[in-house]
Amino acid sequence: MSKTDPGNYFEDFKLGQELKHATPRTVTSGDVTLYGALYGSRFAVQSSDAFARAIGYDHAPIDDLLVFHIVFGKTVPDISLNAVANLGYADCRFLRAVFPGDTLATTSVVIGLRENSNGKTGVVYVRSCGTNQHGQAVLEYTRWVMVRKRDPSSPAPSPHLPDLADRVAPDVLGRALPELDPSAYDTALAGSAHLWGAYEPGERIDHVDGMTIEEAEHQLATRLYQNTAKVHFDLNQQKDSRFGRRLIYGGHVISLARALSFNGLQNAFHVAAINGGRHVAPCFAGDTVYAWSQVLEKCELPDRSDVGALRIRTIATKDHLCADFPTKGDDGKDHPSTILDLDYWVVMPR
Amino acid sequence: MSKTDPGNYFEDFKLGQELKHATPRTVTSGDVTLYGALYGSRFAVQSSDAFARAIGYDHAPIDDLLVFHIVFGKTVPDISLNAVANLGYADCRFLRAVFPGDTLATTSVVIGLRENSNGKTGVVYVRSCGTNQHGQAVLEYTRWVMVRKRDPSSPAPSPHLPDLADRVAPDVLGRALPELDPSAYDTALAGSAHLWGAYEPGERIDHVDGMTIEEAEHQLATRLYQNTAKVHFDLNQQKDSRFGRRLIYGGHVISLARALSFNGLQNAFHVAAINGGRHVAPCFAGDTVYAWSQVLEKCELPDRSDVGALRIRTIATKDHLCADFPTKGDDGKDHPSTILDLDYWVVMPR
Amino acid sequence: MSKTDPGNYFEDFKLGQELKHATPRTVTSGDVTLYGALYGSRFAVQSSDAFARAIGYDHAPIDDLLVFHIVFGKTVPDISLNAVANLGYADCRFLRAVFPGDTLATTSVVIGLRENSNGKTGVVYVRSCGTNQHGQAVLEYTRWVMVRKRDPSSPAPSPHLPDLADRVAPDVLGRALPELDPSAYDTALAGSAHLWGAYEPGERIDHVDGMTIEEAEHQLATRLYQNTAKVHFDLNQQKDSRFGRRLIYGGHVISLARALSFNGLQNAFHVAAINGGRHVAPCFAGDTVYAWSQVLEKCELPDRSDVGALRIRTIATKDHLCADFPTKGDDGKDHPSTILDLDYWVVMPR
Repeated sequence: MSKTDPGNYFEDFKLGQELKHATPRTVTSGDVTLYGALYGSRFAVQSSDAFARAIGYDHAPIDDLLVFHIVFGKTVPDISLNAVANLGYADCRFLRAVFPGDTLATTSVVIGLRENSNGKTGVVYVRSCGTNQHGQAVLEYTRWVMVRKRDPSSPAPSPHLPDLADRVAPDVLGRALPELDPSAYDTALAGSAHLWGAYEPGERIDHVDGMTIEEAEHQLATRLYQNTAKVHFDLNQQKDSRFGRRLIYGGHVISLARALSFNGLQNAFHVAAINGGRHVAPCFAGDTVYAWSQVLEKCELPDRSDVGALRIRTIATKDHLCADFPTKGDDGKDHPSTILDLDYWVVMPR
Repeated sequence: MSKTDPGNYFEDFKLGQELKHATPRTVTSGDVTLYGALYGSRFAVQSSDAFARAIGYDHAPIDDLLVFHIVFGKTVPDISLNAVANLGYADCRFLRAVFPGDTLATTSVVIGLRENSNGKTGVVYVRSCGTNQHGQAVLEYTRWVMVRKRDPSSPAPSPHLPDLADRVAPDVLGRALPELDPSAYDTALAGSAHLWGAYEPGERIDHVDGMTIEEAEHQLATRLYQNTAKVHFDLNQQKDSRFGRRLIYGGHVISLARALSFNGLQNAFHVAAINGGRHVAPCFAGDTVYAWSQVLEKCELPDRSDVGALRIRTIATKDHLCADFPTKGDDGKDHPSTILDLDYWVVMPR
Repeated sequence: MSKTDPGNYFEDFKLGQELKHATPRTVTSGDVTLYGALYGSRFAVQSSDAFARAIGYDHAPIDDLLVFHIVFGKTVPDISLNAVANLGYADCRFLRAVFPGDTLATTSVVIGLRENSNGKTGVVYVRSCGTNQHGQAVLEYTRWVMVRKRDPSSPAPSPHLPDLADRVAPDVLGRALPELDPSAYDTALAGSAHLWGAYEPGERIDHVDGMTIEEAEHQLATRLYQNTAKVHFDLNQQKDSRFGRRLIYGGHVISLARALSFNGLQNAFHVAAINGGRHVAPCFAGDTVYAWSQVLEKCELPDRSDVGALRIRTIATKDHLCADFPTKGDDGKDHPSTILDLDYWVVMPR
C-alpha cells in the first residue's frame, strides 16, 4: 500500500460511507490578517473586536468564507484529488460563529453516486460538515464532483441521487449570529447607512471596484486553506494541460467577489448560507475580477427583530466592468466575461 | 442614492466638516508578521516582546508606519477616492504606542479648501486623527489632496488655507514612548552600538541594501491597510492610464525605505513625527528601491535623559544605488532616480 | 566607523570568538499562518492546538524549520554577508519545542578557520545556538561558509578544522518532544495510518506533488526570517550577476521539500536533527519543485516507547517529476534536475 495518498477513485466511494478528513487546523488572528490582505474585505464586524463586542459578540468572528475554505480544503485529498470537475454546491449553512483559537475539522458522508454512461467517470455527492474543537457543527454543505474511475471495468454502483433544495429555507438562517443590539451598530463605522430595510428584491448593484490576481496571491490563499489540488500550484505540469497554466481555486474568486461586494452591501457582514454556485469559466493570474449583485429575495427571520436576510446573486466577471450588469443572453448563454454565478443568503441589521 | 460609495467630490467638502471613517480594525500579531514579511524591518523593540519589556514596554509595540498606513487607509474612501493627486503631508505626530489587540479608527476634519483656477478641481486639507478603542489619539496628521469637482459649474467655496508648520517642534516628540531603562537596552541585540550621541547633523548614510517590489507584495500590503484606491489593484483599467500599469501605494515605498534605513539607523526604532514628504515619482512592480539618509537636526527632548531625537531626511531611489547620495541638482531638479523625499523625526536611546 | 553594517570579512573572525546576533524576534501565530501559506504544510501537530494538546503538548508547537530559518536568519549579517558560498551544515539538533509568544535570539562561536590557497577567501566554521526568552537552547547547528577577505595581504590564521560528525547520534533525538500519548494520536486526522513501524530502511517514497515558486513568495519568506542576504531581493544588482536574476534562499527550498514530503511521511511531524545537506543547484522563481525521500535508518529512542526515529534523505528537483527517484548517476554526478540533497532525522509515533 502506497504511503503517498493516491486519493479516492469513483469505485472507492460507497453510499453512506463516512470520511474523517485530515488535517485539523486552529484558526488564529494570523489567518484573519492574511485573509484580509489577500482580499481587502472591510466588513466592520470581522475587522474590529471593539465593533463586534459592542453589538453582542465576545470577539470579532472569523470571516464566513475563510471558514468555508478551511473546511473545504480538508476534503480535497479524499474527495476531489481525482476529480475531473467540481460540479456544484447546495444547501451550505453557516451554523455557528468561529473565533480565533477554534480548531476546525471536517467529516463527509457520501450521499449520492451515479456512474457516467462513458464508464470512465462518475458523480459523487457528499455532505460535508465542519466542526470546532467541541465537536459542534460550524458549517454543513453538499457538494458534487465528477471523479475518475481507477479501473473502467469495475462495476457501476446502483445510482442514487440525493434531493437537492434550490435554496436554503430562510427560517434556518441566522443561527451563527448572537442576538444583536441594533442601537450599538454604528453605520458610519460600518461604511453605509443602508440597512436591511433599504434593499428591495430585483435591485441591482454594480460593485464598481476591480482586483487583478497574481500567481503568488492565489497560491498563498490556496495553501492557507491547506487545499492540495495540484492544478493550482504546478506550472510544470499545467504547461501541458488544456489551459497551459495554473488554474485559480474557484473559492479564491468567491472570496474576491465577496470582498468587492462590500461596496454596495456594506452591512451584509454575515453569509448565512450558500444556495448554489457555478464557476462559469476558469480564472487565471493576470485577470482582473469585477462583480455585481442582484437582490433575489428579502426575508424576515423568525423571532429576530435585530436582523433580516437578503438572498443575493453575485456575478463575477473578468476584465469586464459590471456597469452593464452582464448576465445570460437571450440564447441562455452566460456573458462571455462571466466567471462566477453565486446564489447565497446574507444577514444584515434591520 | 447609490449603495455603492461614489466617494466625495470637491464640492462635498465644507470647512469644519467632520468625517467618521469606516472600517475600525483590530491590529494583531498577524499584522506584525505580515508587515515584517513585506518589508523585512529589523528594529529590536518592534520585533521582540522580551526586548521591549526589558526596556520598559508592556509588550512590543506595533511599527509606527503600520499604524500610519492603517489609520490612513480608512480615509481613502471619503477623502481621496476622486483625487487627482496626493499633494502633501504635514505635522504628523505619533502620540501613543499601539499594541496587538488595539482597535484603530479614524476621523478627519476639513481644515482648508481652495478651488483651482481651472474650475474642475480643488485642494482639500484635512486633519486626520487615529484613535484606539479607548478613544485615545494615537496619531494625528494633516494631508492635502487635489480632488475633482462633480459638477464644474458648482460655486467655489471661500478659499481657506491652513497654517502648515515646516516641522513638528521637538518638544512634543517622545509622547508615544514610555520612560526607557537605557541600561537594559542591549545594543548588540539591537544591531548597532551607535546611539543618539553618535550621530551629527549633516551626516549622510547610504543604507546600501535594495529591495525589488513585486505586484503581489504591494497589493497584499495595500489591502492589509484596507486602502481602496483603485490604481493599485486594477490592471485592466490601468492599462489605459498614463502609466499603463498599476501604481504602487506611496506608503509602501515609505515603509520599504524605512526598513532599508535600519542598516545605518539601527537604534532609531521609533518614528515620532513626519514633518513632510514628497512622492517624487511613481514606483512600479519590478523597480528596485534603495535609500540614503541625512541627519538634518539633533535635539534633546524636554525632561528625557533616556532618549534624544534626530530629524532625518530619507531619499529613496529606484534602480540606482545610493553610494553617491543622489539629491537635487544645481538646477533644483530631483535626481532622476528619486521616488521619495521624506522628512521625519526619529527617537533613539542616548 | 561606518554606521552601515559592512559584515565581517574572513580576517575579522577569530577562533573561539563569540558573536551575539541581532535581532531578537518573538514568534507568533501570525508566523504560523504565513509559514503555512508559503509552503502548505499539513502536519497535524503543528496545525492544530486541539490535536497537539490531546497527545501531550500544551499548545501546537512552531514548525521546526520555521525555528531554524528564524535562528539562521540572525546569523546572516555577521557570518555570511560577505560569503562567496554556503558550504554545509552539520550536527543540527532541535532541542526544545518553540511556542507562539517565545522570543528567539541567536549566538555563534567560531569553531574553525582555514584560509584558501588563493589568499582571497577562507572558510569559517561556526556553531550557532538559538535560545528562547528563558535562555534555553532550542536549536544548535554547525555551518561553514566561504567568506571573502577584506584585504588579500592580511596574514592567514593557523588553520583549524572542527570534527564534524556524519550524523547526529539517535540517542540525543526526541528531546524537544514531550512524552506522547500514542492512544490519543488520531491517524485519520493526521492523514495516514503509517506509523514508525510501517517504514523500512531502503524504502523510497515519491512525494508526487509539485509547487512552482514565485518571486513574491520567496521574498516574503526570506524577509519573514529577517534574512538579509542581498542576492534574494535585489534584481537590479542581480541582473549583472552570474545568474542574471534573484537567487532563492536555500532554506525556502528545504521548507518546500519538507511540506511536499507530508505526502508519504504524514506522521513524521517532528524534525529532530539535520545531519547535513547540499544545495546542489540554485533555484529561481518559476521553477517547480518536486521531492522524493529514502529511509536511510530506523532507530528506537532510549527510554521512549511512544516514538521512534527515521533517518531520511530527501532529494528535491526542479521541473522533474520524481517517480524515477532521480539520484546520482554512475559517474557520481547529481541528476541534472537536483537542487537539494538533505539528510535528517524525523521522529514519528510508534
